[in-house]
Amino acid sequence: MKTNQIILSKLPKGKLDIHHFHIQESDLPSAKDGEISVRTLYIALDAASRAWMQGDTYRPALQAGNVMAGIALAEVIESHVPHLTKGDLVIAETGWQTHATISADALFALPTLKPVTYLLSIYGVPGLTAYFGLLQCGKVEQGNTVVVSAAAGAVGSLVGQIAKIKGCRVIGITGSTHKCDLLKKDFGFDEALDYSTGNLEDKLRLVCPDGIDVYFDNVGGNILDAALSNMKKHGRIVCCGAISQYDSDTPKANVVGIPGQLILKSLTMKGFLLFDYLDKQPEAFHDLSTWVSSGQLRVVEEIFKGLEQLPKSLVGLLNGENIGKRIVQVADI
Amino acid sequence: MKTNQIILSKLPKGKLDIHHFHIQESDLPSAKDGEISVRTLYIALDAASRAWMQGDTYRPALQAGNVMAGIALAEVIESHVPHLTKGDLVIAETGWQTHATISADALFALPTLKPVTYLLSIYGVPGLTAYFGLLQCGKVEQGNTVVVSAAAGAVGSLVGQIAKIKGCRVIGITGSTHKCDLLKKDFGFDEALDYSTGNLEDKLRLVCPDGIDVYFDNVGGNILDAALSNMKKHGRIVCCGAISQYDSDTPKANVVGIPGQLILKSLTMKGFLLFDYLDKQPEAFHDLSTWVSSGQLRVVEEIFKGLEQLPKSLVGLLNGENIGKRIVQVADI
Repeated sequence: MKTNQIILSKLPKGKLDIHHFHIQESDLPSAKDGEISVRTLYIALDAASRAWMQGDTYRPALQAGNVMAGIALAEVIESHVPHLTKGDLVIAETGWQTHATISADALFALPTLKPVTYLLSIYGVPGLTAYFGLLQCGKVEQGNTVVVSAAAGAVGSLVGQIAKIKGCRVIGITGSTHKCDLLKKDFGFDEALDYSTGNLEDKLRLVCPDGIDVYFDNVGGNILDAALSNMKKHGRIVCCGAISQYDSDTPKANVVGIPGQLILKSLTMKGFLLFDYLDKQPEAFHDLSTWVSSGQLRVVEEIFKGLEQLPKSLVGLLNGENIGKRIVQVADI
Repeated sequence: MKTNQIILSKLPKGKLDIHHFHIQESDLPSAKDGEISVRTLYIALDAASRAWMQGDTYRPALQAGNVMAGIALAEVIESHVPHLTKGDLVIAETGWQTHATISADALFALPTLKPVTYLLSIYGVPGLTAYFGLLQCGKVEQGNTVVVSAAAGAVGSLVGQIAKIKGCRVIGITGSTHKCDLLKKDFGFDEALDYSTGNLEDKLRLVCPDGIDVYFDNVGGNILDAALSNMKKHGRIVCCGAISQYDSDTPKANVVGIPGQLILKSLTMKGFLLFDYLDKQPEAFHDLSTWVSSGQLRVVEEIFKGLEQLPKSLVGLLNGENIGKRIVQVADI
């Protein structure tokens, strides 16, 4: 059997573009004991995948010539493990390819639900990241003023809505007036600020005259600095991502207020990964599905069709094009 | 009555030097209701006073022409408040001058103890900063690997010793082999690293192969980055000072690992000020005095004599000359 693969042809210097990728056909290795072969259905796009090209993170750095890494919803077509059978759905690190043969160690059969892509958005990495980041890491409380950056993105749009459900005042930071409108009209944010025009520090001060209790940071860099300047005494900063730092050779030093602002205002800044809260997943699924069913939580997905759409979709996501979770459908379910 | 004052003649561009100051004689204002006049005995030097020239901090920014700000141990010579009488000792913001007339609102008479300068070191700002920073903000536990920067300074030398008392392994970072020797021989540190030669990140890795549990940061900048790279998963960083950022016009963005390292290792970074822990002062005084009496805690002070020594002493402190707490004696007690 063959698999169509998207290869990271070379590591980017500076910004990533579609010419860093090419497509190729390869033989699919046969599944051995402990392995399964899958047919990829939907591949999730994530800004963090650009950081995998910069060096080791929570996974080894990507190298030129690798199949581009990524997480997919996939269907088992051949199984050499007892706990999975043909037809089961799994979320797995398949990489950007139509078929993959992978270790089945940490995989399990997923329930079928509608729409099935929710397994990659609200019930997948972005949903759990928003939930645990805001509630466990950020410990938001009713009445808090919460600011979130990359607010129209997969994680940010959920963070803002969950904060509203928890009784907070919510301000989103995003990159266009169009997205600002969406945040307020479609996602129920109290305020939305466009970082691409004017002075963000001043704009934040206007909408948060009493300061920020919790800043949920998806971007780092200058926007983090603008938030630091507006934090309330004893405020909390949730470090979830650093999108502003990803699309270059290496991260740059560009946050001025560290450690100065942390000291002056006795701030706490805390990073987290999903793995930290694995034991609390059942609670998260319960809450998220309740809010989705009741219509309190709106899940937005952008779904493109065709393996060849992946490079363009990632480059666009890094340029801030997306609203909600960006997913590429590789095959019909 | 006259007072001799050291004036900040102009705000420094770049590094501070003694030519930014001049001495002048002024009339001492008479104390009105609610005020006292004092005779300054000992003035404490603190690297943070350079930051007061950069902008507003926990106090308004210093301006050209101001009497240089500073905290002193002083003797009341005239009192217009009932709770203080002539001869009482107080710690007060007198500024760099031989006599001062000041509001007595937040002042109280201090016990006499020997040496009296301990009121400015172990029982003053540096002692309480080390104690609360390490135990309350950093929450060190027995068996932790603790790293402290500016380790031979007023705060750092106490942080390391308190961490040893609490059963930690302690590594100090300082700026010369001479100070490294002192840290190990006189202060009981397990290891000491000279940041001025070689690659600090690599050196830290060698002495902390399993990573750092608590990093007590007095300096920010590159040294903070070297520590960030060596933190253990779920480690804590105590943000106490940013000496590397003080001696210039404005703080620079020069920490690369924020927020990346915080996310990858689920680190917590927390700033604090002494005011945060005012309610715990009795406990702190009890512990610190017990450790001083038993000889477990060694207090090192460098005392210079004469008001005119202040500018030179501060410039030297910013250049890393000092061991322990630097104090200038202005008058005999």
